[in-house]
Amino acid sequence: MERTYVKDLSGQIGNPVLLRGWVHKIRDFGKLKFIMLRDKTGLVQLVISDQTHEGLRIETPLEVRGILQKNDKAVKGLEVQVEALSILAEPEYDILPIEINREDLNSALETNLNYRSLSLRNVKKRAIFKVQEEITECFRTFLKGEMFSEIHTPKLVSSGTEGGSEVFTVKYFDRRAFLAQSPQFYKQMMVGAGFERVFEVGHAYRAELHNTWRHLNEYVSLDVEMGFIKDEFDLMNLENRFMKYLFDHLKETCAEELEMYHITLEDIGEIPKMTLEEVHEILLDRYDKKSPVGNIDAEGEILISQYVKEKYNSDFVFLTKYPVKKRPVYAMPDDENPELTKSFDLIYKGLEITTGGQRIHSYSHLKNNMIKFGLNPDDFDFYVDTFKYGMPPHGGFAIGLERLTMKILELDNIREATLFPRDMKRLTP
Amino acid sequence: MERTYVKDLSGQIGNPVLLRGWVHKIRDFGKLKFIMLRDKTGLVQLVISDQTHEGLRIETPLEVRGILQKNDKAVKGLEVQVEALSILAEPEYDILPIEINREDLNSALETNLNYRSLSLRNVKKRAIFKVQEEITECFRTFLKGEMFSEIHTPKLVSSGTEGGSEVFTVKYFDRRAFLAQSPQFYKQMMVGAGFERVFEVGHAYRAELHNTWRHLNEYVSLDVEMGFIKDEFDLMNLENRFMKYLFDHLKETCAEELEMYHITLEDIGEIPKMTLEEVHEILLDRYDKKSPVGNIDAEGEILISQYVKEKYNSDFVFLTKYPVKKRPVYAMPDDENPELTKSFDLIYKGLEITTGGQRIHSYSHLKNNMIKFGLNPDDFDFYVDTFKYGMPPHGGFAIGLERLTMKILELDNIREATLFPRDMKRLTP
Repeated sequence: MERTYVKDLSGQIGNPVLLRGWVHKIRDFGKLKFIMLRDKTGLVQLVISDQTHEGLRIETPLEVRGILQKNDKAVKGLEVQVEALSILAEPEYDILPIEINREDLNSALETNLNYRSLSLRNVKKRAIFKVQEEITECFRTFLKGEMFSEIHTPKLVSSGTEGGSEVFTVKYFDRRAFLAQSPQFYKQMMVGAGFERVFEVGHAYRAELHNTWRHLNEYVSLDVEMGFIKDEFDLMNLENRFMKYLFDHLKETCAEELEMYHITLEDIGEIPKMTLEEVHEILLDRYDKKSPVGNIDAEGEILISQYVKEKYNSDFVFLTKYPVKKRPVYAMPDDENPELTKSFDLIYKGLEITTGGQRIHSYSHLKNNMIKFGLNPDDFDFYVDTFKYGMPPHGGFAIGLERLTMKILELDNIREATLFPRDMKRLTP
Repeated sequence: MERTYVKDLSGQIGNPVLLRGWVHKIRDFGKLKFIMLRDKTGLVQLVISDQTHEGLRIETPLEVRGILQKNDKAVKGLEVQVEALSILAEPEYDILPIEINREDLNSALETNLNYRSLSLRNVKKRAIFKVQEEITECFRTFLKGEMFSEIHTPKLVSSGTEGGSEVFTVKYFDRRAFLAQSPQFYKQMMVGAGFERVFEVGHAYRAELHNTWRHLNEYVSLDVEMGFIKDEFDLMNLENRFMKYLFDHLKETCAEELEMYHITLEDIGEIPKMTLEEVHEILLDRYDKKSPVGNIDAEGEILISQYVKEKYNSDFVFLTKYPVKKRPVYAMPDDENPELTKSFDLIYKGLEITTGGQRIHSYSHLKNNMIKFGLNPDDFDFYVDTFKYGMPPHGGFAIGLERLTMKILELDNIREATLFPRDMKRLTP
């Protein structure tokens, strides 16, 4: 007999079924026991009407055979009259450190992270990762439909991507290596290698010294790089279309999960664009808020999102034309004002979730720019040399997967959107 | 006007087209020039019939407008009569270190790896990664169809997975971390966390001190873990079905790439299974080959593959029932002989591409086994504690992506199947 998942039960009333899962809740009336069984796909009530299975504990993994019946008072109107029950493993805990079977856990974030394989059994916690899985799935499907190829680039590298700060050091045999802060150099090289359009779903590492609600030291970066572009607007256009594709898809595939978090996703049209200069003016005029030179800070991100929401009814806004001094060495200078770059950030619900832009594609230009930035091009020769052999105009962007997940579901802390987060204090589980 | 990819040209004869790509070859007859243009999808002949564009160099990125015409003598019977040509970037090389436009490169592997963004422009080299991309795509699609969820687990970990040898050390703020040798502990924990069936496509790190044709220090591991299994045969059955799905799919989507490498993929039926003991006997009887205790060596893998190919006409063979002493601490002992385990390897064309098996799921059993193996369970408490809370019978396996790619295309060196390989000597590009 084949196992049936709980989500596939409806329509099988009167039939014998084989279920597997964990004991979620028990109500014991002596002769009659009601067990809520939880599998990967949902919850269903089991009825045991003899006096076997005394002392069955919560979270025991079971295999159950029985007849599916209608019961309007049970979850989804279904219950299983149990005919045979096997305990697949005896739990060996003293007490459960987390009350998994609540709708909302009442345990602290730290507890939930310490007992991750327990807290994730909570239906609402698992929902976060259903949404996250759909985001990566959409990212790949959308980009493959746009002729992008998936790549895997090394995370063990010989030099920091952005000049070497905030990078983890690895003992690599008899020398030092670093953990890649981003696949930046490699994705550009792959455009030059004739793949033209590439994406990667992979880990990125930042040895940042702050422990905040929005930083992780290891995160999943959704990276895009695209050759033969006209300018940075091609990239913003691509990301805009991706977000629309994603949100339309999430509304279909994650309706239940979004509902759990009381989220209504907007219908994405054209995402508003503002230059950094305009944003600085708005922040000052309307909110009396001063910004750091060449950027906005966390409070500025929140305020400009408020403004855009009120004025354009959009949760998203592209900020464009960041100054050369605040962007990496490979950022393409603006045509009109060479002190600005063809770069952008995407702010979503008050948080930066993307940095992107057009890159310099001329070998001499890039090499001279490195010297101007105080870098030695020889330290990056494997990257810079690529540009000798005919590199088309190109650019790209990266989306932080956990940040996007967190903001879609309006979670308070990025650690909620990570299975096993890594921060300054946390290396386990 | 929209860009057309070379692969989409046929059927557009007589129409104006816009192409982008690199100059692959030039034949210059003064008044008449023939240029082979290469884009991500193929090659097409361009005809320039005026005397412009003198000194155009190989590998220049171009944008071209022209009329598509029939020419039976050109590749695929098509050529483009050029009306406008823009050079998108001027190459700045002295000489090209690799003759990219040959069918088979005649440069050494080291040269090809040193100039990776050049060697990958070669059509046959790129084909390797088309096949590789389809493998990961099939892996995901097949497993999602079997109710598996995709996960991302940390690569920065606090302890080695298999006891701590051959592991890279990372300076993690004020302490030490390691690079994960596999997602083993985490994928098991995710089964226990109620996800039941999980997979991951992610990097794994081995600080192995050998530099061979089949080892990489950073590779992509296709990991699977499955809860509620009966025994290890459920896992072999799953992998068998995946391989069949994959090969059927590759025959459809990569016919051209397989043809380039003169590969005919077998029709996969039921993959033969042999116990390690049987294999030892066959190797000794038929090939006078002695094997190391509890395993076979590289030569043994080749010989047993020969035997299986002759006897069963299969490129694959499962080797089962490895001894406890040669398998990790979490391997489930065999029911009949407790000195053996419910584990297996999959050998393909003379190379191990998978290790797998059922795992111990009882907390006491696992903890006692650790002590028996001379490990301190407290060093792995975040993992072992998971088993207190009700862990169903489970198991899994991992496929080395580069090994599978290499063997499908019968490449000589695993580095050919890696965009940017990492070995004892190589950290760049």
